[in-house]
Amino acid sequence: MERPRHQGMAKNTNMRWRLPLVCLLWEVAMIVLFGVFVRFGPEVDAHWEEEKKEMNLTSDIENDFYFRYPSFQDVHVMIFVGFGFLMTFLKRYGFGAVGFNFLLAAFGIQWALLMQGWFHSFKNGKILIGVENLINADFCVGSVCIAFGAILGKTSPIQLLVMTLFQVTLFSVNEYILLNLLHVKDAGGSMTIHTFGAYFGLTVTRILYRPNLEQSKDKQGSVYHSDIFAMIGTLYLWMYWPSFNSAISDHGDAQHRSAVNTYCSLAACVLTTMAFSSMLQKKGKLDMVHIQNATLAGGVAVGTSAEMMLTPYGSLIVGSISGIVSTVGYVYFTPFLESRLHIQDTCGIHNLHAMPGLIGGIVGAITAAAATEDVYGKEGFIKAFDFTGAYQTRTPSIQGGFQAAGIVVSLLMAFAGGAIVGGILKLPIWGDAAAENCFEDDVYWEVPEDEESDVYHMHNPDKPASP
Amino acid sequence: MERPRHQGMAKNTNMRWRLPLVCLLWEVAMIVLFGVFVRFGPEVDAHWEEEKKEMNLTSDIENDFYFRYPSFQDVHVMIFVGFGFLMTFLKRYGFGAVGFNFLLAAFGIQWALLMQGWFHSFKNGKILIGVENLINADFCVGSVCIAFGAILGKTSPIQLLVMTLFQVTLFSVNEYILLNLLHVKDAGGSMTIHTFGAYFGLTVTRILYRPNLEQSKDKQGSVYHSDIFAMIGTLYLWMYWPSFNSAISDHGDAQHRSAVNTYCSLAACVLTTMAFSSMLQKKGKLDMVHIQNATLAGGVAVGTSAEMMLTPYGSLIVGSISGIVSTVGYVYFTPFLESRLHIQDTCGIHNLHAMPGLIGGIVGAITAAAATEDVYGKEGFIKAFDFTGAYQTRTPSIQGGFQAAGIVVSLLMAFAGGAIVGGILKLPIWGDAAAENCFEDDVYWEVPEDEESDVYHMHNPDKPASP
Amino acid sequence: MERPRHQGMAKNTNMRWRLPLVCLLWEVAMIVLFGVFVRFGPEVDAHWEEEKKEMNLTSDIENDFYFRYPSFQDVHVMIFVGFGFLMTFLKRYGFGAVGFNFLLAAFGIQWALLMQGWFHSFKNGKILIGVENLINADFCVGSVCIAFGAILGKTSPIQLLVMTLFQVTLFSVNEYILLNLLHVKDAGGSMTIHTFGAYFGLTVTRILYRPNLEQSKDKQGSVYHSDIFAMIGTLYLWMYWPSFNSAISDHGDAQHRSAVNTYCSLAACVLTTMAFSSMLQKKGKLDMVHIQNATLAGGVAVGTSAEMMLTPYGSLIVGSISGIVSTVGYVYFTPFLESRLHIQDTCGIHNLHAMPGLIGGIVGAITAAAATEDVYGKEGFIKAFDFTGAYQTRTPSIQGGFQAAGIVVSLLMAFAGGAIVGGILKLPIWGDAAAENCFEDDVYWEVPEDEESDVYHMHNPDKPASP
Repeated sequence: MERPRHQGMAKNTNMRWRLPLVCLLWEVAMIVLFGVFVRFGPEVDAHWEEEKKEMNLTSDIENDFYFRYPSFQDVHVMIFVGFGFLMTFLKRYGFGAVGFNFLLAAFGIQWALLMQGWFHSFKNGKILIGVENLINADFCVGSVCIAFGAILGKTSPIQLLVMTLFQVTLFSVNEYILLNLLHVKDAGGSMTIHTFGAYFGLTVTRILYRPNLEQSKDKQGSVYHSDIFAMIGTLYLWMYWPSFNSAISDHGDAQHRSAVNTYCSLAACVLTTMAFSSMLQKKGKLDMVHIQNATLAGGVAVGTSAEMMLTPYGSLIVGSISGIVSTVGYVYFTPFLESRLHIQDTCGIHNLHAMPGLIGGIVGAITAAAATEDVYGKEGFIKAFDFTGAYQTRTPSIQGGFQAAGIVVSLLMAFAGGAIVGGILKLPIWGDAAAENCFEDDVYWEVPEDEESDVYHMHNPDKPASP
Repeated sequence: MERPRHQGMAKNTNMRWRLPLVCLLWEVAMIVLFGVFVRFGPEVDAHWEEEKKEMNLTSDIENDFYFRYPSFQDVHVMIFVGFGFLMTFLKRYGFGAVGFNFLLAAFGIQWALLMQGWFHSFKNGKILIGVENLINADFCVGSVCIAFGAILGKTSPIQLLVMTLFQVTLFSVNEYILLNLLHVKDAGGSMTIHTFGAYFGLTVTRILYRPNLEQSKDKQGSVYHSDIFAMIGTLYLWMYWPSFNSAISDHGDAQHRSAVNTYCSLAACVLTTMAFSSMLQKKGKLDMVHIQNATLAGGVAVGTSAEMMLTPYGSLIVGSISGIVSTVGYVYFTPFLESRLHIQDTCGIHNLHAMPGLIGGIVGAITAAAATEDVYGKEGFIKAFDFTGAYQTRTPSIQGGFQAAGIVVSLLMAFAGGAIVGGILKLPIWGDAAAENCFEDDVYWEVPEDEESDVYHMHNPDKPASP
Repeated sequence: MERPRHQGMAKNTNMRWRLPLVCLLWEVAMIVLFGVFVRFGPEVDAHWEEEKKEMNLTSDIENDFYFRYPSFQDVHVMIFVGFGFLMTFLKRYGFGAVGFNFLLAAFGIQWALLMQGWFHSFKNGKILIGVENLINADFCVGSVCIAFGAILGKTSPIQLLVMTLFQVTLFSVNEYILLNLLHVKDAGGSMTIHTFGAYFGLTVTRILYRPNLEQSKDKQGSVYHSDIFAMIGTLYLWMYWPSFNSAISDHGDAQHRSAVNTYCSLAACVLTTMAFSSMLQKKGKLDMVHIQNATLAGGVAVGTSAEMMLTPYGSLIVGSISGIVSTVGYVYFTPFLESRLHIQDTCGIHNLHAMPGLIGGIVGAITAAAATEDVYGKEGFIKAFDFTGAYQTRTPSIQGGFQAAGIVVSLLMAFAGGAIVGGILKLPIWGDAAAENCFEDDVYWEVPEDEESDVYHMHNPDKPASP
């Protein structure tokens, strides 16, 4: 059912040849590059039988698969169901929310396997992959999903694919600088995923600023059941965040610790979010936007420090603060960013990822700087911060400094990268919709006739349906 | 859009200062108490590196994290998505169902970590936590989610937080009496979680009896898509129940056995539920209320015995019976409880948790009493019932007696506790809604304008929307 | 609210005595057969304590539970939420989609434990079960869920239970022929689950051909939110498919490899599906039917080869091709099958399971035939194909031939079995609905009054609701 208002569209949003071309071109490129570069890692390859003997492993359970696969699956759910459904809150953009998130993430993980592989898993001309690479690819794509939140409803699928290509690339470079050059710890990605992803997305949406967006203002809200769909996304992100922050931590206590800290932080975050959501409304009613988003800030804010000895009460404090900051952000900062800075942030990623990401980076720097051999144990101390080899002489306070530097680098990469990519996305060739058609699925999707019109029909058999 | 009927509300349901105050007060209390008491357990702490050597562990895989974390995540999903979505069946209470469940569970797990910690993980003045504590905290909160089911739609969020505070406390005391003083086995919590939680909730709802509740009768039903949302909750509870019952069982065969028994019981339960749902309707049509709830009774009813040698066919029998009892309960007992005993049980927890919980306790007592060294093996027998130390001389039949005593204690605690807490919740200061506003989200939530009214608008552009 | 059009129903769809009878009869049969035959396997039984010593196992972590339970739970979610929600896309058949899938799967897993147990886990007159049996039972039922997709909306629950009984039986026979007699590898079930299940279902629906089905054509589509419900099913199938294909692979590298290959294949599949979905529409708009289904073809198509050394780029190629084939199938083959061959395939299982299943079988045969000791390592080669005992002398090319034979056997079993079972289901005693009542929940379910009619009411207080 074409609605009349679409007849006035000035822009060509027909994807028929452009989208297939981009998808197929990139998939062919992936196949070629995978063919040249990607091979199974030693724990994935059938030679593992022999490898095991060389490594003196007595049991198959020592295969990294059993340490990380359950966490991997949780992270996988967060990326595809978590982010996908969190964004279904818009009344008429559910297909785009879930579907485009699906598209960009499916492409992104392939490209991330390559980019991160070249930086981190490259041996004798080949990228050797295993379950940890899959997790890292999902993480990398997580930062793209975050940026997608800022431009949700305003971009064509091609723009999203182009953005994914560039953002994954920049993510991998930034990650390499932080993890390898600065030797920074960031297991849950407060800096690499959230700070970078959010400021990148905010920069992009600033550059794509649409002055006439109020033309689709009526579609930028939720309806009753779309808010419940969004809660599916929220809860899966919330529940599995302990897996997210612990998925690539060292085996043993570090993984265990990351999960416990994150669990505590998230629990506290829910209470302060509810408190401030109610407090900041005249009638004291809770706002689903806050519950859907700010309750997750606690996971973001311990992303760097969760694997450190943050302690359970430390986690509660960080979670509490981030819930407050995030909720206040939704009430005061988002309108300000839009009206004064022309940053149109559909999902409020500034509140959920940018500010909590910064908090996470800072908390990580402080926690690292405060580390002592007494708290970690002699061996635990070295293992936790990997103070071996070239970093043997690094002290906690220096580590704290490098951690802080990691925040700054991530911000710079995000601003610069976002500006360039935003500029590219502004080219008039990608098929984005006019302002009055934003937040509307039927620009890019076959949308079934409204059930409501059906029902209307049914119950009023004498009356014709809408125009 | 405020609806006119709310103008007549006599009660003050404005949460603006009360809810934030309670949330923040309690979160601050949590931070202080965690600061004083809670620390990482040995497998979570960075000293684990040294601990490992002392314990002669050769591999990180021996960390309890790898034995229990996947089950923990399944339990976590059950508490937040399972219970939360199961209760979204009401047509206009989806936000409250998912959102208040989220709030009370997030608070409850913090308080449970403390309460259960003092009883079970207290060493040298500190509570040492790890993944098993997280599971137990989720379990404890599960009993609050059950009680919430009885009062769903009729209480303010403050009442729920107050109830959570007290119920978690009483749960922990009851659990301590059963597990430590009576030395009772109850891994899946038929007694501690279901029997206690359900009778507690039923007592509370009895005390909060609302004689005029038929004023909101029209809102106490479901609509088509809210029933489908509820099935998300049902299925996640059903699928992950094997993890629930096995999550804290002993490593190895006990965990394995709990999962297998629960799987069998639940499968059988679906068939008898469907059979009786159809049989008890004149037209033989299936009722979603039964499918959403009674199919789960099989999980409740093997909660105590799943880790014992119940055997697969024993599980089928228990599951079959509990599905029948539960479905019959929905058809005959729930109306009786409401009309005769003034117990208004929104979700029918009497049918899903109370009766199957009792069955579970009894089956557990019988299975324990029937245990023999022949069936369990000499070592397996001792390990299964922990007949060591002070309990070295306990025989199966004595154990069966203690198991039965555990049921009685749980019931007494539930009735007494529920009566006291119900009395507290009856105080007129907590901001609960008037009878005509029960089961209605817009008392406590910002609710988006109805999409239906939008659509109506759209298709009838000449007509104004509702009043 | 009974709708007038149902008054004209010629067929008796009242389930009141028939459905309960079938459910209870079969559950009693299960209890008796389980009582006679099913016992705990050695790793589930309490004797495991002693077993462990005999097997020289030093840790409980060596229990198969820890190798397979996380994968089992993922598979479990795929069967109940994945298939269940995938089929909720129909506007008025959500209860039937989720509910009947729940019913048939819950019965099917019990019967599958017996059937597969007799063939594969039978020792000294007893079937010994453990977590691997649970996975295999879920797998077997998966093939019934696939067949259900073809007849969705057109059959009574009794027909589904009858079909499940026979299909599980035939599945187990076919599986035995393939795995034991032909010594074929098929861990992810391209042949045993998908090819068999799909062609079985297509044969059944051919025999149940309804010439007047266009009478319910208006109900055979989706509405906006039912398409979003269906995406829950899609995403859970997509995300957990790596667990599906690796769940019963050998411990260690084989499980790891299956997961990695499947992850790659699925990622590629999304891109080619999106490309062709857009390309094959005049306006270039994406079609939710394709996104919901064809994106999964990549998981089906590596079902046989995922545990082999398919390599990541091999997986990308297979995934890419299967996404194209599947999408093209939805656009061109489905209408052709319906109009020319009278195969009414509600969910398009021909495109999602049949063709990709065949591709999977063929790719498996080729990959096996191409295996070399160089690629697998000497020990890995023997382990991967289990070239031991009687199969010590089998060469890769012979194995490839047997793999191909496995496809043919599966097809023959599906056609013959489907024809017989279709004939049985055609008997006029099972209570299926008339053509005009297909795809309509209120034939077999108590359906709540439409919320839309409520709303209509609400907003038009002067008007009576529909008839």
